[in-house]
Amino acid sequence: MSWLEQAVKPLDRTAERAAQERQQQLTKPAGALGVLEQLAIRLAGMQGRVCPRLESVSIAVFAADHGVAAEGVSAYPQAVTAEMIRNFARGGAAISVAARALGAELSVWNLGTVVALETLPGVESRIIAPQSSNLLHEPAMTGAQLQQALDTGREAVLRSPTDLFIGGEMGIGNTTAATALAAMLLEQPVKELVGPGTGLDSTGMALKCQVIEQALERHGNSRAPLMLLASLGGFEVAALTGAYLACAQAGIPALVDGFICTVAALLSCRLNPAVADWLLFSHHSAEPGYRLLSQALPSAPLLDMGLRLGEGSGAALAVPLLRMACQLHAEMATFAEAAVSEKGS
Amino acid sequence: MSWLEQAVKPLDRTAERAAQERQQQLTKPAGALGVLEQLAIRLAGMQGRVCPRLESVSIAVFAADHGVAAEGVSAYPQAVTAEMIRNFARGGAAISVAARALGAELSVWNLGTVVALETLPGVESRIIAPQSSNLLHEPAMTGAQLQQALDTGREAVLRSPTDLFIGGEMGIGNTTAATALAAMLLEQPVKELVGPGTGLDSTGMALKCQVIEQALERHGNSRAPLMLLASLGGFEVAALTGAYLACAQAGIPALVDGFICTVAALLSCRLNPAVADWLLFSHHSAEPGYRLLSQALPSAPLLDMGLRLGEGSGAALAVPLLRMACQLHAEMATFAEAAVSEKGS
Repeated sequence: MSWLEQAVKPLDRTAERAAQERQQQLTKPAGALGVLEQLAIRLAGMQGRVCPRLESVSIAVFAADHGVAAEGVSAYPQAVTAEMIRNFARGGAAISVAARALGAELSVWNLGTVVALETLPGVESRIIAPQSSNLLHEPAMTGAQLQQALDTGREAVLRSPTDLFIGGEMGIGNTTAATALAAMLLEQPVKELVGPGTGLDSTGMALKCQVIEQALERHGNSRAPLMLLASLGGFEVAALTGAYLACAQAGIPALVDGFICTVAALLSCRLNPAVADWLLFSHHSAEPGYRLLSQALPSAPLLDMGLRLGEGSGAALAVPLLRMACQLHAEMATFAEAAVSEKGS
Repeated sequence: MSWLEQAVKPLDRTAERAAQERQQQLTKPAGALGVLEQLAIRLAGMQGRVCPRLESVSIAVFAADHGVAAEGVSAYPQAVTAEMIRNFARGGAAISVAARALGAELSVWNLGTVVALETLPGVESRIIAPQSSNLLHEPAMTGAQLQQALDTGREAVLRSPTDLFIGGEMGIGNTTAATALAAMLLEQPVKELVGPGTGLDSTGMALKCQVIEQALERHGNSRAPLMLLASLGGFEVAALTGAYLACAQAGIPALVDGFICTVAALLSCRLNPAVADWLLFSHHSAEPGYRLLSQALPSAPLLDMGLRLGEGSGAALAVPLLRMACQLHAEMATFAEAAVSEKGS
């Protein structure tokens, strides 16, 4: 049996109930901390402790180039994927700054770039190919390449134990792949989902829409998640899908980033619906397709700040909210401890 | 001339422009960090430096009892105001936990409670009266009491220099006072604004609505902010109004909490419209009246997490977002520094 078919870890409903009861006793009107209360309770169920903690946070950024970039679907040249990997390694990218600020462990997983890279600190080289194949003309990857990408996602999750996993992505052209996947997953027209990505103008967006529509005509009607990934995915999207599945199997809460990561998260839920129990959604991406995507999510994203960067940056931004939820849950006094009168008394 | 009439500090437009230019050079598509970019730019203009910082954060919670509590407008007994001040001092309240987590300085300003309090560490005693007068039957405070409350707000701001000021409030009955003020400020019917506060049921809300409507009939038509505060305010609402005004005069950014603080913030803007330049709004309160209130705000709140606790807790929750905005702005590499290709190159 492949690891892909292994069972997802069940939530600890006893810890979840105990956390719910604790919330009722804290010195505040019931429900007054809104979503923060629900986060503490969900994390209690995932971590199997009444007071969950988020000390260690692991961020893995998966990077890969896309053959479909040759169609002119991105505002940036393809060399930027490799250049940004260097920027991650040197600490100058948004996710590098955010990881430092959070005290999180940052790893970068290079799945293949058209510009070959030197050895870089903090960058794991797991080259599958210089880029995925051009999904407009052929399947983006072979079955063997897909398995390699899924395995790398799992490897990144299992390498170091953590209280919270964040996946990020970098890959010029990857909103094209993700939009194609989203159109298939949501059964929505491409034009309802397509967006500017890193900054296309309206002419660029029209071209991108056309490229994706033609690719979908070529692809056929299968909505099997692995089939979709092989046909339309990118290496980093497949790695993220494997990572979310591995998180759920290993019992590690995963905080999902923006548009591309959310497409991968939905794919992991199609592989096994129980994965949804282990996913938290961090933010509403400004990429237009996120609106329809969000309607298919098992839970609402926490933030809506107009972000559309990727790299895991939006998920990193939400970490302090989760940590605060845990701290309030663990450290607030109960009505009895603080001798505060209860409602209606 | 009273300090109330002193000018508000002008923003530093040169620093603001320099920050805007810096944002264009950082290694990300222009605008990809959404609201975080705008926050860094606004804070640059307030602090007069290209790279603003939020190391020191000062949280002042103003507490007071309300005569109108006698009408049965709260789900909790009035003793809770004093009991919660003790909880603040002992570190068990939500804002105590949040302040510790943020490394923020927390001070509590007792403006008067019906249950007299012993001396408590971190609690400044500035008793105006055991409670404000019952606004249903008479003005909530005299002119002299109003001045004392406003002065205490200013004192809290000026006591210690800080990169960011947060005001909080505690006072059983204070959503009644704030809703009455909001109805006058927004020229909206009370029934469109009234909410459960700490947890009234529908019967309680109907009573609260009636009490406020009768109070407004008594009050007359004046919308002069000081007149409104004296008639319908509470000591802590007036202190917050003074605090926001003092922040703008001293050039300290103020992060506004939920429903009650936002009413005070709007009052401070009515006293001097330039105060708006110095206000950041932290979160969309779950109190129903906030929806109409938010339409009158000079800028949008950052978070919407169903919070309705007060104490400054929602503002505290937003601090890590502001800090992350500053860190990304200061520490990300530029395209030139990182040798990353630019758009369309």
